[in-house]
Amino acid sequence: MNRPITFDIEKRGPGLARAGTITTPHGDIQTPAFIGVATKATLKGIVQDRFSDLGVQAIISNTYHLFLSPGEGVIEKAGGIHAFMNFDGPIMTDSGGFQVFSLGEGFGKKLSKLSSMPEVTPESSTQPVFYDEDLATSHGKLAVVDEDGVTFTSHIDGTLHRFTPERSIEIQHKIGADIIYAFDECTSPSAEYEYQREASGRTHAWARRSLLAHRQNIEMGNKQGLYGIVQGGRFADLRIESAKALAEMDFDGYGIGGSFSKNDLLGILDKVNAELPEEKPRHLLGIGEPEDLFIGVAAGADTFDCVTPTRNGRTGTLYTRNGKLNIRRAEFTDDFTPLDATCSCFVCKNYTRGYIHHLFRTGEMLGPILASAHNIYFLTHLIADIRTSLLEKRFESFRDEFLSQYL
Amino acid sequence: MNRPITFDIEKRGPGLARAGTITTPHGDIQTPAFIGVATKATLKGIVQDRFSDLGVQAIISNTYHLFLSPGEGVIEKAGGIHAFMNFDGPIMTDSGGFQVFSLGEGFGKKLSKLSSMPEVTPESSTQPVFYDEDLATSHGKLAVVDEDGVTFTSHIDGTLHRFTPERSIEIQHKIGADIIYAFDECTSPSAEYEYQREASGRTHAWARRSLLAHRQNIEMGNKQGLYGIVQGGRFADLRIESAKALAEMDFDGYGIGGSFSKNDLLGILDKVNAELPEEKPRHLLGIGEPEDLFIGVAAGADTFDCVTPTRNGRTGTLYTRNGKLNIRRAEFTDDFTPLDATCSCFVCKNYTRGYIHHLFRTGEMLGPILASAHNIYFLTHLIADIRTSLLEKRFESFRDEFLSQYL
Repeated sequence: MNRPITFDIEKRGPGLARAGTITTPHGDIQTPAFIGVATKATLKGIVQDRFSDLGVQAIISNTYHLFLSPGEGVIEKAGGIHAFMNFDGPIMTDSGGFQVFSLGEGFGKKLSKLSSMPEVTPESSTQPVFYDEDLATSHGKLAVVDEDGVTFTSHIDGTLHRFTPERSIEIQHKIGADIIYAFDECTSPSAEYEYQREASGRTHAWARRSLLAHRQNIEMGNKQGLYGIVQGGRFADLRIESAKALAEMDFDGYGIGGSFSKNDLLGILDKVNAELPEEKPRHLLGIGEPEDLFIGVAAGADTFDCVTPTRNGRTGTLYTRNGKLNIRRAEFTDDFTPLDATCSCFVCKNYTRGYIHHLFRTGEMLGPILASAHNIYFLTHLIADIRTSLLEKRFESFRDEFLSQYL
Repeated sequence: MNRPITFDIEKRGPGLARAGTITTPHGDIQTPAFIGVATKATLKGIVQDRFSDLGVQAIISNTYHLFLSPGEGVIEKAGGIHAFMNFDGPIMTDSGGFQVFSLGEGFGKKLSKLSSMPEVTPESSTQPVFYDEDLATSHGKLAVVDEDGVTFTSHIDGTLHRFTPERSIEIQHKIGADIIYAFDECTSPSAEYEYQREASGRTHAWARRSLLAHRQNIEMGNKQGLYGIVQGGRFADLRIESAKALAEMDFDGYGIGGSFSKNDLLGILDKVNAELPEEKPRHLLGIGEPEDLFIGVAAGADTFDCVTPTRNGRTGTLYTRNGKLNIRRAEFTDDFTPLDATCSCFVCKNYTRGYIHHLFRTGEMLGPILASAHNIYFLTHLIADIRTSLLEKRFESFRDEFLSQYL
């Protein structure tokens, strides 16, 4: 079969690091790459016609958020997410597992296994299930997991919904991203070993079901690639076991997920990636600070996403080669130098720290817009520089030089 | 003397209407024109590199706001407002009269004449005056007017400041816009005839002092043009008297201000403009809804400014040739047509009502950004079409055709 997603490795090393190209139905991604986070089909504050100039090759949206609003049916009717949001490049959708589990009000407290869960029939598993109001009320906002899937309340209006692997894949097919993700159970960072082991088992069963649901669609002409998600929480042996289990399934690539504590994960990422098929791309979900990119690349990750460039941008925290700065500080009032003198983004070429300080101080929208654009550019160009250093066999010296200035 | 601002009338009529070109040190303004409102040196939500595509020929900033933050000294140090905000086209600054009087908490209530005002010396009149705390406390937030100027509290932090005509001109010289305005007293819409008559007299005296202060600077090489501001509140005879008084002074152009109730003003605008020198440009301050533009142009106004395109944009109210629409309405959820099928702005060419509805519904910044851009384009292009209709002697038929669809 013609795979919708292919991966060519151009250069290997040092260690597990590699530079390559992921080919998707909507274009290529030169890796390592930073994928812009467009949770609700918008990279916050950035008009799509700037993506190219800002180095945004690809974006990742979220199944949970798009399911709640506008609904996958609306996006399908628009002609899929590329047409809906007017971006013709590669798009990923995360399966919604992380959000289903993390946005419930009682995450870590109210998340529970319900042994008395109503039986779910194959038909209902692909539709939102509305349980009786008593059950919803008695549990408040929560996510209730069972072997078949998870029942959860919307963080927007408290309505009750249900995701199963089949349902998540069905929604992602309608949304129409180039790369979609298997539905996974994302455990609380405080989950005990025994629970985590059990949850990993479910994630693997759900991965198989996601793959099966996806294959049926592929046979009908679908052109999306499916990534499995490695779980295992903060336990190295469970992570490695999870990678082994997923490696045996025929995914187009792999996500490494559930990273509530990136320090736990980054330390074992190389061991996880060593278990995954070398010829498949690996995406590190939700991690992407400058220092993390170097660790992740060295440990064999190919793509990254992280909300920090836009989230930091909205609060006035800006990346520079000399570390982060808070543009709200009074010292920038009459500083008429660029945010980062070494940066070539349109913000640094046209605006000063003093002007951006003024925008933040007076609460003007243009502040977050310019700051987010700069931060996105900073990360996409940092990883482009990392890619070049891999191709030119000088990754370690580039890393050491960058980090000595940045940290 | 070489005037910094010149005005060429290319076509006259019908009535007082005219199409022309204002030449400024930073380029021309084809009139009639809609001037973008950039109160705090930013056209809200719009990156400056889009101004040209959005038809923004010129912008108007505000002396009161820029004086409070970042301060005129910061802007001067940046090299003036053009360099500070990275816009090389024509910029106006309103004198701050309107804001000093309207942003005080007690507008219409606490505005008062204080007969016991401390005497102001020529030196202190060009500096903020900090009266003793008892006086400030006893009056709360207010603007206290005397013959020499006005003492007011900042709407940001309650600090006490003082503007005189000389001080306003000094601040505007440091900010460095191409067109600056005389300092005026802007009365409450509820002001009685007697108070308004008195206030108009003060505005005329302040106009003379503004002109004098400006001339001294002009002789020192300053390249800014100064507009006088016609006042008179809602009283036709005072408005006409004000126009006559200002017409006798040698301004580079005229603003018609204090329009709290645009219906009162628009009805007498032709009589006001008939008193003003024909060869000088006239700016209608703070008025610029589509229907107002036709009335204003017919009554002889050359330029307009108004916050509505961006303010409406931020709340999801969008201009179309068929009237305004509220993009938040549920009917737009799966409407995949452009905001306005006749519009050629980048928003209408690339995005659908359904997508913009989704952005507003989910509280995404991109919604206000795209909506503001469309609204700005709509108004600048409407007035460009009005200009063409004047040049082609078909203003009235264009007006009737537009309004029959719009209203």
